[in-house]
Amino acid sequence: MKIDDNFYMKLAIDEAWKYQLLTYPNPAVGCVVVKNGAILSIEAHKEAGKAHAEVNALKAAFLKVNPNSVLKTLNNSHDIHDYLKKNHNNFFEDCEIFVTLEPCNHEGKTPACSELLKILKPKRVIISVKDPNPKASGGLETLLDANIDVDIGILQNDGYNLLLPFISWQNKTCIFFKMAQTLNGSIDGKISSNRALAYVHTLRDKIDLLLIGGNTVRIDKPTLDARYIAGRAPDIMIYSKNKIFDNNIPLFKIPNRKVFISNDLFKLLDYKFVMIEGVYTLLEKFKERIDFMILIVSSKIRKGENSLNDIDLDFEIMHENFIGEDKVIFLKRK
Amino acid sequence: MKIDDNFYMKLAIDEAWKYQLLTYPNPAVGCVVVKNGAILSIEAHKEAGKAHAEVNALKAAFLKVNPNSVLKTLNNSHDIHDYLKKNHNNFFEDCEIFVTLEPCNHEGKTPACSELLKILKPKRVIISVKDPNPKASGGLETLLDANIDVDIGILQNDGYNLLLPFISWQNKTCIFFKMAQTLNGSIDGKISSNRALAYVHTLRDKIDLLLIGGNTVRIDKPTLDARYIAGRAPDIMIYSKNKIFDNNIPLFKIPNRKVFISNDLFKLLDYKFVMIEGVYTLLEKFKERIDFMILIVSSKIRKGENSLNDIDLDFEIMHENFIGEDKVIFLKRK
Repeated sequence: MKIDDNFYMKLAIDEAWKYQLLTYPNPAVGCVVVKNGAILSIEAHKEAGKAHAEVNALKAAFLKVNPNSVLKTLNNSHDIHDYLKKNHNNFFEDCEIFVTLEPCNHEGKTPACSELLKILKPKRVIISVKDPNPKASGGLETLLDANIDVDIGILQNDGYNLLLPFISWQNKTCIFFKMAQTLNGSIDGKISSNRALAYVHTLRDKIDLLLIGGNTVRIDKPTLDARYIAGRAPDIMIYSKNKIFDNNIPLFKIPNRKVFISNDLFKLLDYKFVMIEGVYTLLEKFKERIDFMILIVSSKIRKGENSLNDIDLDFEIMHENFIGEDKVIFLKRK
Repeated sequence: MKIDDNFYMKLAIDEAWKYQLLTYPNPAVGCVVVKNGAILSIEAHKEAGKAHAEVNALKAAFLKVNPNSVLKTLNNSHDIHDYLKKNHNNFFEDCEIFVTLEPCNHEGKTPACSELLKILKPKRVIISVKDPNPKASGGLETLLDANIDVDIGILQNDGYNLLLPFISWQNKTCIFFKMAQTLNGSIDGKISSNRALAYVHTLRDKIDLLLIGGNTVRIDKPTLDARYIAGRAPDIMIYSKNKIFDNNIPLFKIPNRKVFISNDLFKLLDYKFVMIEGVYTLLEKFKERIDFMILIVSSKIRKGENSLNDIDLDFEIMHENFIGEDKVIFLKRK
């Protein structure tokens, strides 16, 4: 196996996918620090408002070699920036920094990564994808102006796949479809493990709106909150022509969220980040409107109704994560 | 992400899986060489009779730092052993060698890896699983006698999964089931890409016997050879009570292979390495007899007959490889 720029970039991309969607409204980004050929850190951006991938990776790399540094106690992004700027002592000058997205160039909730790198002066910065957000871009120029070697476009297709949700919610309402099935496509009964269910609750905590089919509400009476992680319950759109539902089910009792019944898809545009939970009838209706799909697959074969037997769709697998024994597959239409 | 022994061992295990089954009758083994924290090589054993994983990895590591060494021109395992023994010049003394299986201790078609390591004297050897084959084991003792630090049992469960096919064909007839389906479990029509079909032909070239259902032969009239890779066609057992088949179909015309019709499963025991190609009717019959299963999944949703709708089986995913756009999933029964 070749151990080259692609190898290290793949590590950065895989790490970033672990936090895909959870960084909303920020992009998922990964970063690897290599010093004289040794991997010092593999980190990612984990949540909006918290440290960027580069900052997490630079901190972990510095601590790998200086484990007792006071840096260990710092978590705030500004504090880490300040500490590294003052105490780097040329630690990074023989380092290569692999980052899946062009380092940000603007001071937002956290300081600009390009300014930090400019001061740390690593030997080389290797970037998969240029930032499509004009507000954040310009990092490349800052690095070049500081005479830092930069390579851009490494594993660019994988880098774009990682960025697809971000690009979609930057530009418009991002809509994705979530479905769970067994290995053979059965959707009957309880399919997912509790860990996979907790993951779905984590997603519900991030989205603005959850769209669900009227029949599912009538038959399954789901609560559709994020209680497994003590998270925020999203607004709910029950997609239904028939407006009559039993108002006593728990779905309608969750405080601080709106539940509305509609079959008007323009309502989706009032939101930025929408998850549709459903099976094939709903997928058939929304297949042309979704940006990507999350398929949660449990490693078992079960008799029962097949999840998808009426439609023909071709996908590209963007990434797969394991959540315990279940797989989470991120798919985009081909 | 923690960059520790588990991290490097995982790289070795993943590399080995790329050649799973293709090393028959040898085990799939992977090896990573790390020098002062820098990954110099990630290699695997690729085919019986060729260099072991350790030898491939030691060679690649040496060449990474000495790219113009004459070692580059050597492919025979004995020659590589001899060259490294004479010319290592203490290159490996600050190296850590991660290997998924205890290094072999016996001179077979290739010289013993433990004897080579004893001379190269790496700083540390990290092993996932002890060799279950008493003929090859003893490598651990050889390393310890040479005062080399050894850690054993790293990612042991993953190491055993990697070794499962080997343990099975060492001890008895190894039988595995191969099936192809779409994401949603449809088995109708042409499912797999040509690259995935070539992979199946690579497997056919390795096995002794291919078992196929009588109805498949009657309806699909498959040739069941390994022509995509110009490989050896395996013997065929047509599993059928009814012995009447059209002898003019290509299946019966391939030279140098035996085709027989039987429903006597004891016939399988005349062979060491058996692949069953089929769908759910055959899986239902053989589910208690198979050692593992290979599921080839294409990234599309298709209407059509569901592959498995009559049986309940729980699996553990041992590994997944990508072959072009198709996935190859290695499953074992739970």
